[in-house]
Amino acid sequence: MPSYRAPVDDALFLLNDVFHIERYGNLPGFAEATPDLIEAVLREAARLSEDVLTPLNRIGDTQGCTRLADGSVTTPTGFRDAFKQIVDGGWIGISVPEAFGGQGLPSALTETINEYFCSANMAFAMYPGLTQGAIAALLAHASQPLKDRYLPKMVTGEWTGTMNLTEPHCGTDLGLLRSKAVKQDDGSYRISGTKIFISAGEHDLSENIIHLVLARIEGAPEGTKGISLFVVPKISVNDDGSLGAPNGVTCGSLEEKMGIHGNATCVMNYDGAVGWLIGAENHGLSAMFTMMNEARLGVGVQGLAMSEVAYQNAVTYAKDRLQGRAISGVKYPDKPADPIIVHPDVRRTLMTIRAFNEAARALVMWASLKSDVAHRSGDDKQRQAADDALGLMTPVIKGVLTDLGFANTVSAQQMFGGHGYIAENGMEQFVRDARIAMIYEGANGIQALDLVGRKLGKDGGRALMEFLGELGAYIKDKNADDTMKPLVTPLGVAAGHLQQASMWFMQNALAKPDNAGAGATDYMHLFGLVALGYMWCRIAEAAAGKVAAGDGQVERYRAKLTTARFFIERMLPETATRLARIETGAASTMELPDEAF
Amino acid sequence: MPSYRAPVDDALFLLNDVFHIERYGNLPGFAEATPDLIEAVLREAARLSEDVLTPLNRIGDTQGCTRLADGSVTTPTGFRDAFKQIVDGGWIGISVPEAFGGQGLPSALTETINEYFCSANMAFAMYPGLTQGAIAALLAHASQPLKDRYLPKMVTGEWTGTMNLTEPHCGTDLGLLRSKAVKQDDGSYRISGTKIFISAGEHDLSENIIHLVLARIEGAPEGTKGISLFVVPKISVNDDGSLGAPNGVTCGSLEEKMGIHGNATCVMNYDGAVGWLIGAENHGLSAMFTMMNEARLGVGVQGLAMSEVAYQNAVTYAKDRLQGRAISGVKYPDKPADPIIVHPDVRRTLMTIRAFNEAARALVMWASLKSDVAHRSGDDKQRQAADDALGLMTPVIKGVLTDLGFANTVSAQQMFGGHGYIAENGMEQFVRDARIAMIYEGANGIQALDLVGRKLGKDGGRALMEFLGELGAYIKDKNADDTMKPLVTPLGVAAGHLQQASMWFMQNALAKPDNAGAGATDYMHLFGLVALGYMWCRIAEAAAGKVAAGDGQVERYRAKLTTARFFIERMLPETATRLARIETGAASTMELPDEAF
Repeated sequence: MPSYRAPVDDALFLLNDVFHIERYGNLPGFAEATPDLIEAVLREAARLSEDVLTPLNRIGDTQGCTRLADGSVTTPTGFRDAFKQIVDGGWIGISVPEAFGGQGLPSALTETINEYFCSANMAFAMYPGLTQGAIAALLAHASQPLKDRYLPKMVTGEWTGTMNLTEPHCGTDLGLLRSKAVKQDDGSYRISGTKIFISAGEHDLSENIIHLVLARIEGAPEGTKGISLFVVPKISVNDDGSLGAPNGVTCGSLEEKMGIHGNATCVMNYDGAVGWLIGAENHGLSAMFTMMNEARLGVGVQGLAMSEVAYQNAVTYAKDRLQGRAISGVKYPDKPADPIIVHPDVRRTLMTIRAFNEAARALVMWASLKSDVAHRSGDDKQRQAADDALGLMTPVIKGVLTDLGFANTVSAQQMFGGHGYIAENGMEQFVRDARIAMIYEGANGIQALDLVGRKLGKDGGRALMEFLGELGAYIKDKNADDTMKPLVTPLGVAAGHLQQASMWFMQNALAKPDNAGAGATDYMHLFGLVALGYMWCRIAEAAAGKVAAGDGQVERYRAKLTTARFFIERMLPETATRLARIETGAASTMELPDEAF
Repeated sequence: MPSYRAPVDDALFLLNDVFHIERYGNLPGFAEATPDLIEAVLREAARLSEDVLTPLNRIGDTQGCTRLADGSVTTPTGFRDAFKQIVDGGWIGISVPEAFGGQGLPSALTETINEYFCSANMAFAMYPGLTQGAIAALLAHASQPLKDRYLPKMVTGEWTGTMNLTEPHCGTDLGLLRSKAVKQDDGSYRISGTKIFISAGEHDLSENIIHLVLARIEGAPEGTKGISLFVVPKISVNDDGSLGAPNGVTCGSLEEKMGIHGNATCVMNYDGAVGWLIGAENHGLSAMFTMMNEARLGVGVQGLAMSEVAYQNAVTYAKDRLQGRAISGVKYPDKPADPIIVHPDVRRTLMTIRAFNEAARALVMWASLKSDVAHRSGDDKQRQAADDALGLMTPVIKGVLTDLGFANTVSAQQMFGGHGYIAENGMEQFVRDARIAMIYEGANGIQALDLVGRKLGKDGGRALMEFLGELGAYIKDKNADDTMKPLVTPLGVAAGHLQQASMWFMQNALAKPDNAGAGATDYMHLFGLVALGYMWCRIAEAAAGKVAAGDGQVERYRAKLTTARFFIERMLPETATRLARIETGAASTMELPDEAF
């Protein structure tokens, strides 16, 4: 049975020593987030993750969810009690404005807590996680009456939320959407249609479920310009906030799927269900994208979370499993064999995962601070710059953290040999669960296209130039530092590859857009390597400071310096291959006629 | 429901046009293998795979195997009938010498047929596949009486075979093995112990199961030098060949696992079971390695097979699924959207898998021809050279073809978006099934160590020097050819990286073996890229010949030239990153103390 310890110390180090959260004290909610409060909140989230959610992870996988004859859905044993603890602890609203019952704390806390919940039990963590996404969309786009009606109980978790985009014939291409909305005299709409792959669409954890649904208003234009967003409660909400009659939305069936069995993936049938418009008519996509962007960051966190828990269990196994002797000489002569952690290829695997985890966590933290500045700063220019950076990095975080997070669960499983393939050891569940994160909220190929096709060129490439500028200034600054020079010099090479690839697109993709499409995934990963490399330099800088100051945990910080070197030496050089691929262009990729396949 | 078409034309092209099988006519069994016979055999294997085995694949996954109260095991519905067709068709013994009831045909045929069976139904294909491995070990090491007693019915498939190595506390490190053998007065042994992860250990497909079992004879030395190999039938075989009483071996339980549910993975309990020694006392490991080497080639074929069937289904989906419009302009104006195959990132994925499949198939063919020369040639020098090449390439084929084969099933699943995560579409089964191939028959990290630690240095590096020599001569020869030059020039660069990495190990790993261990996996993949690149050049050469000759299927061969370019331009450059990693050495990998993890 796998175990899990939430890496609280690592989050505190990042917040306090790497990103200096105290410097953000002018943002609303940050002054309240004292170091003591942050630590207390994270330790309590850790306890909940370790003691309550982790033991339910395998139960959720084996039991799955069950749809009863009346269309209701039950979650696995223990999920209801655990969710009650989420509600009682106010975990969903940690970063929601206090006006709606939240605590208004930095979103870095929410992302960190979500990492713990997800490491402990990804299928479970999706219920509160999707609710947070729905809250974000309502906050950004709904009218005050709708906010007042729905948000308070969603923020507590008494009601949960979903997002309903996909239909059987359309996922990525929402322009093909067929669900219909017919306007009623009272200003409401009647929604009809079938939605598929709706996570947490029906379940027994909350007394109501608030669906956000994309549909086309009668007479609206075809394509993406005729799509509107609606809020559709499972059970009608009366004006006094009490629950009324069931609305016309039901779960038609549950999908049988590869993993995340504890989360109910529903086919949802809307049959004249009453809904209310969020935002303006025919502007549903942009409203939904608010939710998607929050959700994409959250999905990136899932990649990290699965990598972390898989790593921890691989480490435990590598220390316990006795097999063979170190090639450099016997290390544990009192044992019948050495633990496999002595073998370089095992070390290489563990170091690779570890080097990802720590930098990915930093990148999420970096992005969540940008998010808070973008949402809370009173300074237009700062807000703009933060929004630029967040928009640029969101597809990178979603795509790269889930691709590598999944790959890391596979590597961690590999450490177990045949025992990793056996269900009861739990490693194969991590692989199956982590797999979905590469797919949902926009498959990773779509993230790459979002990066290359939208984010790069937006506002004349302002976001990229700002990022490269920040990077260049940092590298130049640290180049004079003997500890940092061996790290920032290769980072400069990698950043040069990123710049060169960006230039290549500018010069070659305007006339031939296929040149951008064929290189998009490589570009996203090149970007990810540079971003993670940058994070390693920031981490190393702070760790070196701790070592120099003779911190009590000096070995912990020395380990970070070694891991930084490992990343820079062994993982970062991949940027050269990514660049080489991009610069070959689309010719050999696109040359074959469709019939040749 | 996934479908499958066996790529017979591709195998015929490789055998006839790339590898010129007619040039091997002096080897026993090759003269009989006329082009017509080969095609007829492969077409029949294709039919069996497509019509009989493919429809049973998902049934096998959902039903799995069942252990009854009496310890017997039933296979999924339809497996018995299908296996009867394997027996009736003589498929197991295609390449077994005629003296034991086989057909003595080239082993390239067996590998190709196994690819088809495995693409169609990997869990099923393991039953005949493991029997072939057991046959190989008996052929190489058993006494004539044992051969005569067991082989004929194993060759037909009336009896199946297994290999029993792993015990709960030992897998890779067989020196820790505890199973015991006690010699009896009649020359037999009584075997006792517990073996785990025994594929096809118990089932209802055959009337007897012949277990090959590693055990330690009473009083034998500790470690790997005291291990012997035994043949232990499930049911005793009388001197007249009839079946006698059940032997003391039973299936204690079935493992619940990630995939290959249709294959029974057994815990086997040996309780004084009667066995006979194969080969000499205490020389069991080397005998088992004969079986392992055959099996490792077969596992590499599984990686290819899963990649091929996943590719075919991804292509079908990419042509059917309408979503979005081509960025270079609408391609199918009569449809509501373009099929996703128009999108460059989808193309990139499909081309990557395709470029692997065709070259991997060639590499398997190349190795199987070496195997036949090594086993059948009358010329000592040729036999030696072929054996060198085969030994060198076996870990590369096992490790690289299963790593990339698995990665390709994941990429193919990704093409389906959310639909790939749903069980009924079958793509997620390919991922789960393919995963085991990276683990069993020596986890891929062990393959990398076998390559770097054993194969490279063996006989003063003779095998590597021969391979590099062959490669160098080929590149030099083709450099004068305008069609081939753009392919062999980058191949020369990649071969240079391989040579440089090999030199680096010679200079840096003798004193510090960790430097070899830390670079082993990267070296294996670097080797794999060079080998696949070499195969692409050979394929392109033959394809160019077909195009020049105005072959009727000229489009098919033009597609191969494009795919060759894709591989050389976009996949081969990864050798530079692999080399860079190797040359960093073990320092940052090994620096942390065990406690830091």
